[in-house]
Amino acid sequence: MFYNSKNWIEKTIYKNEDFDLFNGYSTYETLRTYNKNIFALRFHYERLKKSAMFLGLEVPEYEILKNTLISGIKNFNCKNDVRIKILINKYTSKEKTFYAFIEPIREIDDLRESGVVLTISRERKPKNPVIPYYVKTTLNGYSMYLRQKYNAYYDSIVLNEFGYVTEGTKSNIFIVTAGVITTPPISAGILPGVTRKIVLELIESFNMDFEERNIEVWELLSADEIFLTHTSVGIIPVRRIVPNFTFNAPGISTETLINYWQDFIIANNEYWE
Amino acid sequence: MFYNSKNWIEKTIYKNEDFDLFNGYSTYETLRTYNKNIFALRFHYERLKKSAMFLGLEVPEYEILKNTLISGIKNFNCKNDVRIKILINKYTSKEKTFYAFIEPIREIDDLRESGVVLTISRERKPKNPVIPYYVKTTLNGYSMYLRQKYNAYYDSIVLNEFGYVTEGTKSNIFIVTAGVITTPPISAGILPGVTRKIVLELIESFNMDFEERNIEVWELLSADEIFLTHTSVGIIPVRRIVPNFTFNAPGISTETLINYWQDFIIANNEYWE
Amino acid sequence: MFYNSKNWIEKTIYKNEDFDLFNGYSTYETLRTYNKNIFALRFHYERLKKSAMFLGLEVPEYEILKNTLISGIKNFNCKNDVRIKILINKYTSKEKTFYAFIEPIREIDDLRESGVVLTISRERKPKNPVIPYYVKTTLNGYSMYLRQKYNAYYDSIVLNEFGYVTEGTKSNIFIVTAGVITTPPISAGILPGVTRKIVLELIESFNMDFEERNIEVWELLSADEIFLTHTSVGIIPVRRIVPNFTFNAPGISTETLINYWQDFIIANNEYWE
Amino acid sequence: MFYNSKNWIEKTIYKNEDFDLFNGYSTYETLRTYNKNIFALRFHYERLKKSAMFLGLEVPEYEILKNTLISGIKNFNCKNDVRIKILINKYTSKEKTFYAFIEPIREIDDLRESGVVLTISRERKPKNPVIPYYVKTTLNGYSMYLRQKYNAYYDSIVLNEFGYVTEGTKSNIFIVTAGVITTPPISAGILPGVTRKIVLELIESFNMDFEERNIEVWELLSADEIFLTHTSVGIIPVRRIVPNFTFNAPGISTETLINYWQDFIIANNEYWE
Repeated sequence: MFYNSKNWIEKTIYKNEDFDLFNGYSTYETLRTYNKNIFALRFHYERLKKSAMFLGLEVPEYEILKNTLISGIKNFNCKNDVRIKILINKYTSKEKTFYAFIEPIREIDDLRESGVVLTISRERKPKNPVIPYYVKTTLNGYSMYLRQKYNAYYDSIVLNEFGYVTEGTKSNIFIVTAGVITTPPISAGILPGVTRKIVLELIESFNMDFEERNIEVWELLSADEIFLTHTSVGIIPVRRIVPNFTFNAPGISTETLINYWQDFIIANNEYWE
Repeated sequence: MFYNSKNWIEKTIYKNEDFDLFNGYSTYETLRTYNKNIFALRFHYERLKKSAMFLGLEVPEYEILKNTLISGIKNFNCKNDVRIKILINKYTSKEKTFYAFIEPIREIDDLRESGVVLTISRERKPKNPVIPYYVKTTLNGYSMYLRQKYNAYYDSIVLNEFGYVTEGTKSNIFIVTAGVITTPPISAGILPGVTRKIVLELIESFNMDFEERNIEVWELLSADEIFLTHTSVGIIPVRRIVPNFTFNAPGISTETLINYWQDFIIANNEYWE
Repeated sequence: MFYNSKNWIEKTIYKNEDFDLFNGYSTYETLRTYNKNIFALRFHYERLKKSAMFLGLEVPEYEILKNTLISGIKNFNCKNDVRIKILINKYTSKEKTFYAFIEPIREIDDLRESGVVLTISRERKPKNPVIPYYVKTTLNGYSMYLRQKYNAYYDSIVLNEFGYVTEGTKSNIFIVTAGVITTPPISAGILPGVTRKIVLELIESFNMDFEERNIEVWELLSADEIFLTHTSVGIIPVRRIVPNFTFNAPGISTETLINYWQDFIIANNEYWE
Repeated sequence: MFYNSKNWIEKTIYKNEDFDLFNGYSTYETLRTYNKNIFALRFHYERLKKSAMFLGLEVPEYEILKNTLISGIKNFNCKNDVRIKILINKYTSKEKTFYAFIEPIREIDDLRESGVVLTISRERKPKNPVIPYYVKTTLNGYSMYLRQKYNAYYDSIVLNEFGYVTEGTKSNIFIVTAGVITTPPISAGILPGVTRKIVLELIESFNMDFEERNIEVWELLSADEIFLTHTSVGIIPVRRIVPNFTFNAPGISTETLINYWQDFIIANNEYWE
């Protein structure tokens, strides 16, 4: 189902006379629902606005965006939860509207129990990018490229220019060693993930040992537990990094966070505004 | 006029059910005609193929691409020469076809006489890119961003990570000092421009003094002459770099190259195959 | 004249059985006198202590160092002001003592009137050094190398990894454009010069327009005035950067600072403690 | 024992009137004997000459250097083999002479059987050094600093700016995975070790599988065997990298190389010229 910047339709046709539509000059966000409610829309909207501002693009008003999405989800009438992508480019910017795409969410409960397998990308995250890491845009095409190149794995971990751990191509990463949870700081060159941020709040609410600092590769590979966070799936444990580094999946800290995740977010009103 | 991967049409509609069309995962080339003939199509095609191979995209056969463009130009029936953009993404890749856009070329004879004004971008070319500099793709969005940011100038010169001169956002750059023509090497992190390559052949045919090496900013700013090359306009002199660095425009070497350019390319069959 | 860590002597012999004496594992400071009084000794001592701490070396007590230098200067009995180098290595560290070297200061009043000529080093300041820029040590040998390589000029300006202006091999650098004085920040990778710091205080006391920020090469080369600061000479104007970039020397801002320099430092007790 | 640039003496005194002696502006080599004969002196001399040329220093004639060392070793009269350091600075350069230091070599047969323990340095090798990696000089003080910082381990592995494996602070590194021996290329930023070079010749003479290429940290940590090479000890296996990565020590490839090392070098005349 597709919101073509005017209406929700099953299959759409739209006009284009311009090369610009194809050139990736756009910003986007990926959202999901829990129990049919859009999760942390306000946080995603704020990030979208920041990205759009950097690129000189206009975003719709929050209430308009929100109501449009709600009616779209209702029409789509999926019995499960859904994933939603919204996209803003020069065409939608002119009229302060947007494109949106809705699809059923892929269930991954089995992966949450068994853990996923990762690789480490041989490519380094481009240093000193013209477009900062916090801007979520298809102009920064390297992650799309890496996602395709390493699609045999759940995700690939990207190192930065110094060889420090940054993030996956679609997730943030956390390690647990001797009970201490550690994640790279924003300054390592990562996307400030919405789920990452809420997991940090959950960790804090449990008063778990936590550090935000640069992670060396050998710290990653000698960790007891590793988990990823991203909007679509929340928290997911890693059981192996190829070729032969294995981890508790889920380990005790990861399992604790997974078990309390839904209760924590549901109990917190600011994620549902 | 637009080739929608099937037909040439004045204004087209096409279907899309997918976010992927917008994400910039594509490669493209810009071409032009001289006297209604497509210039250096073979060279552009080879570069397109190399870019597409890196991205895992398929390109059409050369003869099919060529004939399609020729018939498109005939239909477009423009009394002047035209500029053509071709683009390949996952959609066209599946059927080994392409999108194409034709438009009348903007005449710039006045600029060729007076010279253009440039700025130097404060942003550095991203170092260590996942996608190499030779791949012409909208996935490397920084140049699109810079083109928009510095659109008050004809072009902006981008330095690389070390502060060496690389290229403009849509052109290659040459300097002339004490009669010696110098241009940055491919290893400085530049697009191997087709016009750049042919200008090098022209320089060689004239036996002019020439060096391909890293250029420091102070060498650029103390040059006698500077000129740009790109497909749409060929060779164009620079008269000023802001704030207050001025150059002979056109200087004697630049003028020589401009004067012989059309004769040189017309006389050489391999540019018209 | 030489303080061999025990006594002041005209010419000394000392023992060595060890390769370590030659290996540059040491920290040092350069001082000067004004009217026979040591200038800003406390500031130099604090920096020495910081450098020594990083390298795991011990420094003598402040009062001991000071009194030893004062008696050395008295013995040296030079009719002009002197330059003093002090050096701490593993040998002196063990006994919390130091080496010191005294020599007459080279007068440069003519240069202060005419301005000096600089070049820009083709070499970049090493990025990401193991030993931070603030540590004044002969272990960071690149500046010694550059001083020798470019010894045809008063100093050479070193750019950092991005091509930003940092400092000379023995001086800090300031530019003046349209009345605004600008100098690179410590974060550009510079030594936090004592004279630089006091010049900043002088600028502030005059309420002159001032910015501390990254300086691009083209900003340097299009400046109205440029001046250097270092302990031995205070403030010195730049009249040319090779090949052909010229500057007012001294320009009006530089001249103001030079004229008030001695009065300013003499009036301030904390520079003579 | 010490060659003070004039004579061999048990304990020497020498003159110094100059700060320059302490500033590390020098180049050096470390040599050893096997059965009282100096190993690969010609190779070390060639490297010394290259380093000296870069720094603008003069070296003595080969025959003079060689004969001086031979007579020094004879005088030293050590019943075991010895380690020799030679050093050239501005003082010796003026007279085309050198300093030399001789000491008994530390026997490490036990380590050769059990393997050594390494750490990975958190500091990165400085990128883009003014003085190239091939120049063996105390001006590049970072390795001296790291040797002291990590002196609880046999050596520390230093990564380069991208996080690739380069070398230890006093050794070159090789890994063996599935029977393939791999070592970083010179271009990774390493010293072209003499022992490294001869080990490559030994590997080639045995026709073992070999690659010279960039090594990622996870390739290092998942290797079957790791060994170091340096002049003093030849080849030495690594049994552990902290915290918890273990390796066969010696593994089968490492053991083969160790077993044939002495026979190989003794049989080859060019190492004893």
